[in-house]
Amino acid sequence: MSTVSGELQMHTHIVHVHPAPGSYNAMLTQTAGQRLRAAGGTVTVSDLYQAGFDPVERADHYKSRAATESFAALNEQRHAWKTDTLPADVAAEIGLLEQADLVILQFPLWWHGPPAMLKGWMDRVFVSGGLYTSRMRYDAGYFRGRRALVSVTTGAPRGAFGPGGRGGNFDTMLWPVQYSMHYLGFSVLPPFISYGVQGHGYSYEDENVLHDRLKRNLDDWSMRLSGLDEAKPLDFPGWADWHEDGSAVAANVLFESGAT
Amino acid sequence: MSTVSGELQMHTHIVHVHPAPGSYNAMLTQTAGQRLRAAGGTVTVSDLYQAGFDPVERADHYKSRAATESFAALNEQRHAWKTDTLPADVAAEIGLLEQADLVILQFPLWWHGPPAMLKGWMDRVFVSGGLYTSRMRYDAGYFRGRRALVSVTTGAPRGAFGPGGRGGNFDTMLWPVQYSMHYLGFSVLPPFISYGVQGHGYSYEDENVLHDRLKRNLDDWSMRLSGLDEAKPLDFPGWADWHEDGSAVAANVLFESGAT
Repeated sequence: MSTVSGELQMHTHIVHVHPAPGSYNAMLTQTAGQRLRAAGGTVTVSDLYQAGFDPVERADHYKSRAATESFAALNEQRHAWKTDTLPADVAAEIGLLEQADLVILQFPLWWHGPPAMLKGWMDRVFVSGGLYTSRMRYDAGYFRGRRALVSVTTGAPRGAFGPGGRGGNFDTMLWPVQYSMHYLGFSVLPPFISYGVQGHGYSYEDENVLHDRLKRNLDDWSMRLSGLDEAKPLDFPGWADWHEDGSAVAANVLFESGAT
Repeated sequence: MSTVSGELQMHTHIVHVHPAPGSYNAMLTQTAGQRLRAAGGTVTVSDLYQAGFDPVERADHYKSRAATESFAALNEQRHAWKTDTLPADVAAEIGLLEQADLVILQFPLWWHGPPAMLKGWMDRVFVSGGLYTSRMRYDAGYFRGRRALVSVTTGAPRGAFGPGGRGGNFDTMLWPVQYSMHYLGFSVLPPFISYGVQGHGYSYEDENVLHDRLKRNLDDWSMRLSGLDEAKPLDFPGWADWHEDGSAVAANVLFESGAT
């Protein structure tokens, strides 16, 4: 757990999602590991592709079924948590999350969101009745006091992103994954976005310019991780902001985007 | 293809995503099929769970590789399209999309977005170099002139959704999937949202009230499908709205949400 000085003895868990071992995403994960260990912390990594994680939530995963006539995911999740019969891969992922002061989600932006591999990790690992209940959510969530951070790469250059931009606005595109982390109680730090990550031969830049820019970006990532304690979490609504039925006490478009 | 009268001879393809054959999602898909056929149209369905579709984009799917030293998804997709070596399941899904005047995406909202199964269908089936190129996108997209429609179910009741609401705002939550359909050229019709779809024994309502409400909702869905030609598509930006670098000519927050 964190101490007063923050990064000292901090444990970070990185959920790493990319199909290629030598990818730029892998370099970002490696850079994060080096930086956080150099600061005295410990780091674990779930490399979901390497592990062959199955992101499809379905009946096959549950050995002891709550109901066999039809599959209702939340029902089976609650039953599996209560009877201690969670799928082994899910139990392992939960164990890693429980140890972490900081969780980093590292992935490439595919179709304006996380790859299916990460989405399905959420579908399966964020277990109903275990990691959340109707009242143990948001600012009363299981992981309250812990922090989460999205680190995402794009193919398109920085200019294409923003309100009305061709590539979309990150406040909107990351809202589902970031709000889901908030749902579990995490304080969600502003995302780190690596723009214009192009494969060799597909760059819109000179290869040397690309190489230098992406190298500097790793330094920026390292710097970012050195200053986490100064980072203000994203401003998402909590229980005080809602009526009993879940509607907003005062509709606030800032909540919408998770903008800081 | 559509005729002047619209629904006559219209072909609809439904991408159906739910792990349980008897789910309310299945009833929505069945209702859509009945209504659209009754109007003289034809309907096909991809039931991704039943088909055992693999939503994980990775090297294994590609028999003829563009590069074997490292896996770059877009690179392999372009190569597979060009050499006519697409994975068989992907080629079949593309064939079904190509026949459709209207594509319906039917799924439950899981963690503020589509299940991994649908996200991975997008990751794999929306093939780079085939269904889009750098210029064949958005209003110049492959499927321009065709329509798409999201039909989504929620567990939480209607009151919890909207700007600042506990469950999130659908303009934001559906933006990634709807904008991705726009990216391929589809005109995206306003979504149909079925709120408060609760399993038996987990309802916040009396079971009879629940049953009647969900039954009426199927009628609403049927009615909605009868009036598609009056539906104004969502207002997403196109090529005229961007500078060459992809930044917005005039930043417009309405674009952001895809709000009508």
